[in-house]
Amino acid sequence: MNQLRRDPITRRWVIISTQRGKRPHDFKFDTVKKRVGICPFDPGNEHLAPPEVFAIRPDNSPPNTPGWSLRVVPNKFPALIMECEPNRRAMGLYDVMDGFGTHEVIIETPHHEETFDMMSTDKVLEIVKAYRERIRTLKKDRRIKYVLVFKNYGPQAGASLEHSHSQLVALPVIPKRIQEKIDASKMHFQYRERCLLCDIVDQELQETKRLIDENDEFVAFEPFASRFPFETWIVPKKHQTHFEDADEDLYLQFARILRDTIRRLTEVLDRPPYNFMILNAPFVHSHDEYFHWHLEIIPRLTRIAGFEWGSDFYINPTPPELAAEYLKENQAKESD
Amino acid sequence: MNQLRRDPITRRWVIISTQRGKRPHDFKFDTVKKRVGICPFDPGNEHLAPPEVFAIRPDNSPPNTPGWSLRVVPNKFPALIMECEPNRRAMGLYDVMDGFGTHEVIIETPHHEETFDMMSTDKVLEIVKAYRERIRTLKKDRRIKYVLVFKNYGPQAGASLEHSHSQLVALPVIPKRIQEKIDASKMHFQYRERCLLCDIVDQELQETKRLIDENDEFVAFEPFASRFPFETWIVPKKHQTHFEDADEDLYLQFARILRDTIRRLTEVLDRPPYNFMILNAPFVHSHDEYFHWHLEIIPRLTRIAGFEWGSDFYINPTPPELAAEYLKENQAKESD
Repeated sequence: MNQLRRDPITRRWVIISTQRGKRPHDFKFDTVKKRVGICPFDPGNEHLAPPEVFAIRPDNSPPNTPGWSLRVVPNKFPALIMECEPNRRAMGLYDVMDGFGTHEVIIETPHHEETFDMMSTDKVLEIVKAYRERIRTLKKDRRIKYVLVFKNYGPQAGASLEHSHSQLVALPVIPKRIQEKIDASKMHFQYRERCLLCDIVDQELQETKRLIDENDEFVAFEPFASRFPFETWIVPKKHQTHFEDADEDLYLQFARILRDTIRRLTEVLDRPPYNFMILNAPFVHSHDEYFHWHLEIIPRLTRIAGFEWGSDFYINPTPPELAAEYLKENQAKESD
Repeated sequence: MNQLRRDPITRRWVIISTQRGKRPHDFKFDTVKKRVGICPFDPGNEHLAPPEVFAIRPDNSPPNTPGWSLRVVPNKFPALIMECEPNRRAMGLYDVMDGFGTHEVIIETPHHEETFDMMSTDKVLEIVKAYRERIRTLKKDRRIKYVLVFKNYGPQAGASLEHSHSQLVALPVIPKRIQEKIDASKMHFQYRERCLLCDIVDQELQETKRLIDENDEFVAFEPFASRFPFETWIVPKKHQTHFEDADEDLYLQFARILRDTIRRLTEVLDRPPYNFMILNAPFVHSHDEYFHWHLEIIPRLTRIAGFEWGSDFYINPTPPELAAEYLKENQAKESD
């Protein structure tokens, strides 16, 4: 019999097909396109993107020249710009703001063919620390209320360029999904005086059947009410609200488990398109007791149709327990 | 300058590209596949689907035989079944229920090639009344809390069969998106003692720049904070909570504006994939003062990537005012 499961964080119900769960080879997707034309992210093509706002490069090497190992540049076609004020106002019943914010691209590597799963832990650590640096810099602007860091891999996941990159969007408002997570976590805290995601981590570590990986600081698991096949979360074991405020050692552990998890998904699903995003707290301290940052990975294996759009209700053909079995078996190879 | 706009019903912010808005010919999508093999929805193939639960057919014609003009059958691979009890229970922190519910297919026409935009008003009236009949029947089962009616057209919108059909899912819980709409409408009502969607209809009728069509009972418009290009809502002008309780004449007006709107979208966007869904009230009367049913149409023209999944925040490249201009110009041809 199938099950209906409710995610305590978003209070969303999901139908889980426990009967005949879809296995990794049951999913079809477009493979990643090979390079066409000139890549604006390759070394030597720095002039094709806007000037860099952050880079890891040899001392004294001039900006926007080759030699870098990571660069952050504004999006060439930004949806939001910093050269205005948010200027929030009413239009009758509605609310409107000017397009204040920023949209940046993290060019993760100078090597065009190097995908995230191929990278060393040190390389991923460099990327993760670039996220931290940009968040720390952007949060100094009081008009920015939130920075969303995310990665799209593969055309079906929305990536228009092949060269490995992630993105961030800085916003003058708190996104709806974050607000939902705050609201439910707060309700749980008011009732239980504990953090909801801390409780979830405890239960997952005890039940073990949805676990994929763990280290001293992090756990990777398939969420109980996964919306999508092989949806995977990476969560700090100890309560922690702001991604950008972690201790130095934590980023190394995070880089390792993130790279290993992406590698597992890549191998088990044969290089699927995927998105990941860091669900971080807004830049205030009022949610510190109950908001717990985490990362969500969504392989893009199923189509979203009218049912999902109309209801925010999902049918997941792969039980998370089955997905965890596949991912757990696949021990990430040690490359560093 | 782009704008950030907030939808008062879901409290979701959307970035609207007001600068260089994408026009109808800027979108690419797969065209609808042509028939491959035997269609289980064609007359004569009734045995290929489960037995019908409702049909419009000549008096005395036996069920599951040709001659019908519309049939409703259970989904051959149902996600939910009625032969169990919901049996809601805790699993530690989590909530779980057995897969109670039903999933039905409304085969809208016996004619394999007849798409929704080609249908007469009388034909669409037949379909809309079939929705009403099924909702009325299913709501008698006290275990069912909600029935979601929706349609997927085209492979990119999740339709696996070409033959024109819609679907319904009966659920033992209220879907998250509905609950969100209830909550915000309630908040507005508590503050203003008016229905939020009634207020929105008033403002749209006054501002006119997002209007597409209206008749005595309904208005079709592009919502102010449209998530998607050419997203279109059809809303009853007079406050009304339950789709299935409308007066007889209303269904005719609804059928006409729905068919005409689909026809406009089909012509302007050159037969795009789309979803529509009826956002109806749950089967209780506690929300009657502030919940207002409506229908949402989403042409599937853009890709959903990490940003949207992570944040429930959308970038819409076509301002609703521009979309409305295109759709308004295209007067639906009178075919009946």
